Amino acid sequence: MGGNALMQATDDGSLAQQYRRAVEVAKVLHGLCRRGYRVMLVHGNGPQVGQELIRSEEASTKVPISSLDACVASTQGTMGYQLELALYNQSHTLRVATVLTLVEVAGDDVGFSRPTKPVGPFFAPLRARELMRRNKWQMVEDAGRGWRKVVASPRPIDIVNIGAIDAAMSRMDVVIAGGGGGVPVVRDDSGRLAGVEAVIDKDLTSSLLGQLLGAQMMVVLTAVDHVSLDFGKPTERRVDQMTAAEAQTHLAQGQFPPGSMGPKVQAAIDFARATGQPAAIGSVGHVARILAGRAGTRIVDG
Amino acid sequence: MGGNALMQATDDGSLAQQYRRAVEVAKVLHGLCRRGYRVMLVHGNGPQVGQELIRSEEASTKVPISSLDACVASTQGTMGYQLELALYNQSHTLRVATVLTLVEVAGDDVGFSRPTKPVGPFFAPLRARELMRRNKWQMVEDAGRGWRKVVASPRPIDIVNIGAIDAAMSRMDVVIAGGGGGVPVVRDDSGRLAGVEAVIDKDLTSSLLGQLLGAQMMVVLTAVDHVSLDFGKPTERRVDQMTAAEAQTHLAQGQFPPGSMGPKVQAAIDFARATGQPAAIGSVGHVARILAGRAGTRIVDG
Repeated sequence: MGGNALMQATDDGSLAQQYRRAVEVAKVLHGLCRRGYRVMLVHGNGPQVGQELIRSEEASTKVPISSLDACVASTQGTMGYQLELALYNQSHTLRVATVLTLVEVAGDDVGFSRPTKPVGPFFAPLRARELMRRNKWQMVEDAGRGWRKVVASPRPIDIVNIGAIDAAMSRMDVVIAGGGGGVPVVRDDSGRLAGVEAVIDKDLTSSLLGQLLGAQMMVVLTAVDHVSLDFGKPTERRVDQMTAAEAQTHLAQGQFPPGSMGPKVQAAIDFARATGQPAAIGSVGHVARILAGRAGTRIVDG
Repeated sequence: MGGNALMQATDDGSLAQQYRRAVEVAKVLHGLCRRGYRVMLVHGNGPQVGQELIRSEEASTKVPISSLDACVASTQGTMGYQLELALYNQSHTLRVATVLTLVEVAGDDVGFSRPTKPVGPFFAPLRARELMRRNKWQMVEDAGRGWRKVVASPRPIDIVNIGAIDAAMSRMDVVIAGGGGGVPVVRDDSGRLAGVEAVIDKDLTSSLLGQLLGAQMMVVLTAVDHVSLDFGKPTERRVDQMTAAEAQTHLAQGQFPPGSMGPKVQAAIDFARATGQPAAIGSVGHVARILAGRAGTRIVDG
């Protein structure tokens, strides 16, 4: 699910507000656990990491600027905390773990040569120039709103902590992992890992986690109830099910925009193909029906 | 170990600097793993949480102030991240997990009626008055330096995530848990958990974790090589070993100051008494010798 499941644009951004939204998510997850499901939850962190970057910038004359990878690690802690509290308060017997997750990306991922993912606050030109020079940030100007940092969004290639997550899954009802898509790290020629300023798409990380752990199903939770073709046009129609091959064709034809539905469909295709198990896309309120094949859009191997 | 193992007063406070210090810790832990030990690492977070609170205050006109419990969760993420990277870079086959740790404290702990633990930056009187009124902070004036928030330091009574930590310990070489003493939560009459602004002593949390997990030894890592009696006096003498009863007597006689060696000795006494296994206090560079009984101060049951 997206980070906006806990913090929406109209929210006050407080922890108390995030907790209230976490309770809604926890109710759904608790319902699944009561039906016998074991759940891994992968959450985004867009609004939350935005807050962290604002705090970092405002305090930049007093303490060092936070790198984006460190901010991701930080939000894995704070968001896992709110979700765990909400889950324990659904049921004291629910077994929950939040596992810090580092995700390896390729140092030569095409994303790094042309960063496109904007993160954090807008800056005045003078400050932007300073940050580009001193901190080696790449930034772009958004007409009228100022300069903004852009980072790569590389593809996840391995989950560094997969053993720890697998150990947690073996004994827990709910495991929270891969938050914010995971803390991005790259491996150099000698095999050493180092953090890198990037944003990994959480749906692709979720798909990879599901593949490595042998999940029986992946569900991508989003704001819409199902995938549509010709979205926003008079010919718009909902899709109840499609094969990975059909989905790939629609994707190639530009049916699903790169920044929103595109990576969700790609993540679902990858999962279905690698595991032979179904993936689905739909809204959080419909999870039980999505799992039963009675809501959302299902993507199956083939 | 203390949070200053990764960030000392003379450091620049950057993540890169913290990583370099984490490498020193990782070398020691890797050495232990090679000798067949499985290690749980509990770290403090004083300097790191201080940075978080400065960022929060500086950005307080733009985003909500971070509560202390959320900052602890955040540092569990960021510090676990640096330690994990350093450990993986010692050995790619090392199995490491960082588990988010919530620690229950009693809502009626005496600490809450008279908070004494100062946290975060110093404030001018006007801002301090506003924070006390609007955010219900308790603050004290430090003559000449300004006003500072004070919080309770309640005793840890239970580890909420003990099942998750136990699952991780069963399969990992190093588990990082209880960071910053754990995220403090209280349970209300109906059994619901809620975060609370407090600081839990990491040594007491470490002791409790060791007791619950059946650890074979607890080592409190600190800046000194051993415990001393009559510290700083002409009669100062090092202690190689003492029984829990002897240690308790010295503690009652004021041999170990409340803010520094006191809680370390108390944590060691608690561990030795509850488990019958030895606890030790010493410096990080001597860990292997401390485990072998050839350095540090050992506290044994009796």
